[in-house]
Amino acid sequence: MRFFSDNAAAAHPKVIEAIERSNRLDTAYDGDEWSGRLDGAFSELFETQVRALWVSTGTAANCLALASLCPPYRGILCHRDAHIEVDEAGAPGFFTGGAKLMLLDGPGAKIAPDTVEAAIGLIRKDVHQVQPAAISITNATEYGLAYRTPEVAALGEVARRHGLGFHMDGARFANAVATTGDSPADITWRAGIDALSFGFVKNGGLNAEALILFRTELADEVAVRRKRAGHLSSKGRMLAAQILALLEDDLWLDNARSANAAARVLAEAAPDRLVHPVEANEIFLRATPLEAAALQAQGFDFYDWAPGEIRLVTSWDQKGEPIEMLAAAIRAL
Amino acid sequence: MRFFSDNAAAAHPKVIEAIERSNRLDTAYDGDEWSGRLDGAFSELFETQVRALWVSTGTAANCLALASLCPPYRGILCHRDAHIEVDEAGAPGFFTGGAKLMLLDGPGAKIAPDTVEAAIGLIRKDVHQVQPAAISITNATEYGLAYRTPEVAALGEVARRHGLGFHMDGARFANAVATTGDSPADITWRAGIDALSFGFVKNGGLNAEALILFRTELADEVAVRRKRAGHLSSKGRMLAAQILALLEDDLWLDNARSANAAARVLAEAAPDRLVHPVEANEIFLRATPLEAAALQAQGFDFYDWAPGEIRLVTSWDQKGEPIEMLAAAIRAL
Amino acid sequence: MRFFSDNAAAAHPKVIEAIERSNRLDTAYDGDEWSGRLDGAFSELFETQVRALWVSTGTAANCLALASLCPPYRGILCHRDAHIEVDEAGAPGFFTGGAKLMLLDGPGAKIAPDTVEAAIGLIRKDVHQVQPAAISITNATEYGLAYRTPEVAALGEVARRHGLGFHMDGARFANAVATTGDSPADITWRAGIDALSFGFVKNGGLNAEALILFRTELADEVAVRRKRAGHLSSKGRMLAAQILALLEDDLWLDNARSANAAARVLAEAAPDRLVHPVEANEIFLRATPLEAAALQAQGFDFYDWAPGEIRLVTSWDQKGEPIEMLAAAIRAL
Amino acid sequence: MRFFSDNAAAAHPKVIEAIERSNRLDTAYDGDEWSGRLDGAFSELFETQVRALWVSTGTAANCLALASLCPPYRGILCHRDAHIEVDEAGAPGFFTGGAKLMLLDGPGAKIAPDTVEAAIGLIRKDVHQVQPAAISITNATEYGLAYRTPEVAALGEVARRHGLGFHMDGARFANAVATTGDSPADITWRAGIDALSFGFVKNGGLNAEALILFRTELADEVAVRRKRAGHLSSKGRMLAAQILALLEDDLWLDNARSANAAARVLAEAAPDRLVHPVEANEIFLRATPLEAAALQAQGFDFYDWAPGEIRLVTSWDQKGEPIEMLAAAIRAL
Repeated sequence: MRFFSDNAAAAHPKVIEAIERSNRLDTAYDGDEWSGRLDGAFSELFETQVRALWVSTGTAANCLALASLCPPYRGILCHRDAHIEVDEAGAPGFFTGGAKLMLLDGPGAKIAPDTVEAAIGLIRKDVHQVQPAAISITNATEYGLAYRTPEVAALGEVARRHGLGFHMDGARFANAVATTGDSPADITWRAGIDALSFGFVKNGGLNAEALILFRTELADEVAVRRKRAGHLSSKGRMLAAQILALLEDDLWLDNARSANAAARVLAEAAPDRLVHPVEANEIFLRATPLEAAALQAQGFDFYDWAPGEIRLVTSWDQKGEPIEMLAAAIRAL
Repeated sequence: MRFFSDNAAAAHPKVIEAIERSNRLDTAYDGDEWSGRLDGAFSELFETQVRALWVSTGTAANCLALASLCPPYRGILCHRDAHIEVDEAGAPGFFTGGAKLMLLDGPGAKIAPDTVEAAIGLIRKDVHQVQPAAISITNATEYGLAYRTPEVAALGEVARRHGLGFHMDGARFANAVATTGDSPADITWRAGIDALSFGFVKNGGLNAEALILFRTELADEVAVRRKRAGHLSSKGRMLAAQILALLEDDLWLDNARSANAAARVLAEAAPDRLVHPVEANEIFLRATPLEAAALQAQGFDFYDWAPGEIRLVTSWDQKGEPIEMLAAAIRAL
Repeated sequence: MRFFSDNAAAAHPKVIEAIERSNRLDTAYDGDEWSGRLDGAFSELFETQVRALWVSTGTAANCLALASLCPPYRGILCHRDAHIEVDEAGAPGFFTGGAKLMLLDGPGAKIAPDTVEAAIGLIRKDVHQVQPAAISITNATEYGLAYRTPEVAALGEVARRHGLGFHMDGARFANAVATTGDSPADITWRAGIDALSFGFVKNGGLNAEALILFRTELADEVAVRRKRAGHLSSKGRMLAAQILALLEDDLWLDNARSANAAARVLAEAAPDRLVHPVEANEIFLRATPLEAAALQAQGFDFYDWAPGEIRLVTSWDQKGEPIEMLAAAIRAL
Repeated sequence: MRFFSDNAAAAHPKVIEAIERSNRLDTAYDGDEWSGRLDGAFSELFETQVRALWVSTGTAANCLALASLCPPYRGILCHRDAHIEVDEAGAPGFFTGGAKLMLLDGPGAKIAPDTVEAAIGLIRKDVHQVQPAAISITNATEYGLAYRTPEVAALGEVARRHGLGFHMDGARFANAVATTGDSPADITWRAGIDALSFGFVKNGGLNAEALILFRTELADEVAVRRKRAGHLSSKGRMLAAQILALLEDDLWLDNARSANAAARVLAEAAPDRLVHPVEANEIFLRATPLEAAALQAQGFDFYDWAPGEIRLVTSWDQKGEPIEMLAAAIRAL
């Protein structure tokens, strides 16, 4: 059983069905009927007028957003362990034309308003030092913690005060919403978010992510950048159809709840081993190499995150017996 | 009936089946079993060791190839009407970091060796003028003509003589191979091609293209650039599976032959109206606005290419009655 | 005697004196007293509030201006023979992050409003085609012609109508003003120019050019881009001092008049050989290889521009006997 | 008296004389006789064949070197307080096309081999994480410490082991050589340095720096990049002449020795206040705001570096009485 990454899980059957149903001749690119319904569907979900563009990867969603919020000669404040810094091969530098990621510390890969303020305070306001243009946070974070609405709003205040754009990498946005119960609107634009990478691939999708622009005036530029980055699929209807299938009847939330629930089962099996609180679908456990090997010997697959630490990630389709078996195995260590 | 673009056609049922079959948990990115079979499958097809990377759009394939063949401070010789110049939103400039497309003329969007030589001859060999680093051709061309092997080889000679990389945009490579009967190996690397964008999306695929690197030493860099451009899908197996399905039993060739055959039927309906010889699946016809309107009134959809000129594109799944109806309508003009 | 380029001439003695006088400890970068006087000096000259930044090359002035007027994903309309296209090693692509130069034709390297309109009209308004963001003209042009105020204003109208920025490469702005007698204000911002590269190096300066921003709100961004491009000299006072010396008592105009006058003497020596009207300090002459060799044998140095064509450029310090000698030699061919 | 920065000092009289002497018509760009002598002069100084290019700023020298050593998709290991990270407005990101600076710690802004090794060891060797391509050190460092030859050589070993380029930012190279007594050859290429930014502006020059390429095969590309960045001055002879004047009779070393000596006088006035050992021409002193104000009230100008810390920089022309006065004032605090 693989607990390596939700990245690698199967797509939900309804997603595959949606692809099949959309597999007929229509207008190319995003001129089709499915793509045409995205703005409306997300505007309803977020209780405000948004523009929504499909892309095929989270890296593309993140970096298109960042490029629209930060010119080449400025910087983006983010956590030192943010995915955009650590795991996107320098894509933000590519998409922005060389903007700088300005790295901040904070437990659980969260950043706090005073950390951001302190970092800004250290920058001389002259042409020699790179000035920030945006803040980017990940929700749920790379360590599986969820920002609550007031936390996001406090960062939104800092952003507003300094004239900075505010981006949320929501590769696991569904897991964060599922665990906090906060409304999608509250935890994003009402808290100051300008652009959200709304992840579906880790949550039952196949290869469709949505870039949600609360500042709708950015959309035309982002659409050009999407094409220019080779991300305007000619049969984009298949991407839109996946997203619509996951939005229907809140399947995206059900999937996330399912993955979160599985993670909680595992967390409860080893409360003393937890490196971080388990709020989404990632579990970071202290485990010796021997213990890790013992789990692997039983057929459980995961990531050796750091010396003495392993990472387990649950997916929307992992529930019941396999989870119980892993929980038992952890308990038995 | 839509003859607007092969871009918008449905995917072949076997492609959809392949997506379904590959829809199960595996290793993420390109570590899965399907992706792992691409190098072998294409090496067999091309009768030499190649490296093959999936990407989701032709623009991505083209521009990753160009970025690996041309540094930011040099240029790429191509036809004035090449897709990379006209219809990719400046993507080559983005991926290469500002390299210059150096535009050449030639009938049917083909470039000829002496045109290339003449252009190179006009460039002063100093630091003030941009020096070329690569040649890029499209086969079949944007006007539906196919380069024959000797034509490609003659350009390959020019490339070799001047130390230039040589790229082929094969968005309709299948149509070119189907019409010329030339072997994939002969018309590419044996003729000097270093990198081929092998298109599947216009030919029965859903969203998978293959970037074939005959200079295999480029592959590691291209793989990094692919990630950096946000093109490393986490469930890449679905892209690989599509490609493998189309390679199996030469389905790609069958599809292309079918589209080409439909185009020939249309071409034969109006030999006097043809703007370009019809060698692939595109037909450019002289038609007055009234004539164009008459066809549209009968339910035929196409592109008003230029004043007095329309473009019709046939797809792998357009055959039989609809084609005959359109042929009759054209004949009746 | 060298008539190769005004680029290579000596600096005016007053420029050297100014460098010497400014050679004392002051504040670094552009915080010194000389740099502090530039805005005022140019605002007076142009009869409006401007921002003026020194840079050390015309390429830097041009490309900083273009980067502030055109985002990476759009284009700049200019003449096919414009210096930014032909002789700056692709610098516009570098500074803008990959924007496209959109090349226009026109006699004497001038572009005309209808040519610009026609080019814009051919661009589909979609995300696939690069949309223009700016127009750039060179005055005096690369062939030594001067745009008159009404010509610039007509292009300014086109720019305004399409929401485009408007840049003037004034490497030989002094020569254009000297020959037309138009006021600096009339021929620039009153005609719609947003940014002017005001050249001094070809006109008695050593290594100082001024970038004049009529849209003063661009200045802060341009100042950052200047630093980021490595163009913020720490002893910038020496650049400012040169410019101030050339502005004093209209030395810049005197120098240009002198160079223009020398050019006219040469032009009058061979009215039948002129390829372009001589309006500034460049003379393009039809001359056979034998004739060119004959001139060279007499010690005259120049550029073999094209088959059967030579280019002579006069400088601010070339007058009197040497010019008469060259004129005589030309007449004697 | 200003101890703000050596950046702002006057140029040496011999430098001004050299500019005057070179102020005559010659070939433009770097085709003149002075530029032509640079390779030879530096090859002699460094006891090996080098290529030497003038540029007008240290930022340009640094970033041209880095762009030639690091592709856009990789990274450069350097100290967290390195000038390229802190004070160049993101220029490395601009010149490289988005490469990443990978920040290391170490006392006195020096980096140590084991720190570099540890950083490399933490990077997963996959396409998701940015792989390093180069190391950059500053000598003398931003805190006025000098790397000794064995220290550089140990880093050179690391570079070689990992296939990394190795760059030295020598904005104060002269001060480092003067204080260590190490030979220019030993402390650079013999220790593994590939490219050196050899600073003259802070050491008696006006606006000329030299980029020394020990890997001479990089020079042609760097020359193109220099032009493309707008750094190829048309009257480059004035830059070359400055450098030659400073090389003559080791004036560059005399100037550095003079500045270093002045710094030692100040350091000896307050041994207990030193934040860093004083090995070059920068003195970092602990001083309360009141003490700092007291010095300023006596007419001494400097940089409030950090809370409770001031920075004094001595220049080649500061010696004798003013230095003694400042030393006395410090002693008297």
